[in-house]
Amino acid sequence: MRVKHKKWAAPLIAAHPEKMVTNAEEVKGKWQERFEKLQPIHLEVGMGKGQFIIGMAKAHPEVNFIGLEIQETVAAIALKKALTEDLPNLQLVCGDGSDITNYFEPHEIDRMYLNFSDPWPKKRHAKRRLTYHTFLDGYQTILKEQGTIELKTDNMGFFEFSLESMNNYGMKFDGVWLDLHNSDENEHNVETEYEQKFAAKGQPIYKLTAHFA
Amino acid sequence: MRVKHKKWAAPLIAAHPEKMVTNAEEVKGKWQERFEKLQPIHLEVGMGKGQFIIGMAKAHPEVNFIGLEIQETVAAIALKKALTEDLPNLQLVCGDGSDITNYFEPHEIDRMYLNFSDPWPKKRHAKRRLTYHTFLDGYQTILKEQGTIELKTDNMGFFEFSLESMNNYGMKFDGVWLDLHNSDENEHNVETEYEQKFAAKGQPIYKLTAHFA
Repeated sequence: MRVKHKKWAAPLIAAHPEKMVTNAEEVKGKWQERFEKLQPIHLEVGMGKGQFIIGMAKAHPEVNFIGLEIQETVAAIALKKALTEDLPNLQLVCGDGSDITNYFEPHEIDRMYLNFSDPWPKKRHAKRRLTYHTFLDGYQTILKEQGTIELKTDNMGFFEFSLESMNNYGMKFDGVWLDLHNSDENEHNVETEYEQKFAAKGQPIYKLTAHFA
Repeated sequence: MRVKHKKWAAPLIAAHPEKMVTNAEEVKGKWQERFEKLQPIHLEVGMGKGQFIIGMAKAHPEVNFIGLEIQETVAAIALKKALTEDLPNLQLVCGDGSDITNYFEPHEIDRMYLNFSDPWPKKRHAKRRLTYHTFLDGYQTILKEQGTIELKTDNMGFFEFSLESMNNYGMKFDGVWLDLHNSDENEHNVETEYEQKFAAKGQPIYKLTAHFA
């Protein structure tokens, strides 16, 4: 997601350390302390403008949610939105999650979401795709045993790659949907901003749920 | 595939024991003897009217092909077509492959094809789908170690099920295509009759290649 730089982004983030973490390395192993209740932690890598993670936090008060975003302006837009809600079970992070084990201790996370990640369609960029095996290494480390990943995308090539990569890694599939919005699974689906716009065009949204065996 | 009963089917099959096997149990373990050359054997379960397996036999003289079909009339249509070609590397079988280990010895087969299998969409019929784990047991037995299965279908629900079932069984994916006809993989694709008609409507054909680990 590319957005225009916004002057107010950095000051807004600086003014809300209670909601947005910018020094995630220092919170490593202590994420539960940032929430009101001790309950499972779900992490979204690449939250974008935050519609999904905020929607999930509203729908599931019994879960603590963390939304991670690398781009400051995008993270600030999510923060602005989060501040209009009273969600003690939501924390946001601005940071580069490319080595996720810098931010989270082994087994600190119960579930992960990868929504509409950059597909990096060129073969020589395959290593940058968030389902490349080096990323899966990190996810397996921070997730609890049998920890689950939920992935949604509209990009066929990225979905094909992710099916292969996660299968080859030894992950077990819990569910595969090749047209999420026209399936029973859509009943409790929380949409991202991008998904909402994209689905209006009538093209399919793909979803995969899988756990490390 | 449902076709009208044809009177000439049984006599034609009876007249060509050199090309069509009707007592596959008795050929078990001796399939190589039915071919001119000793070379890898590829098996299609559910060959229908035979366009795919005949096309493959023409394109790959270095492989021995077996096409299996349960319905007599459909098998006879395939036989009629095969008899117009000179293909010493093709054998056809009319028989019920539901327990495939009755027909083939362990490791007798190098590769299997499942093309446009009956999707059995109702949940209570899941056990009849040719990628249900009980069928995978049989395939693993008759295939060589690391034996490969190639699957094509136009049915989304059957493809979703097959991805889950083959993954959960521990099979490793070699390739996944969510729109075969618009992919590089299509270059050497041999179409079935059904595929040819279906693809003309512009709907996607799914393909999965996977091996037993």
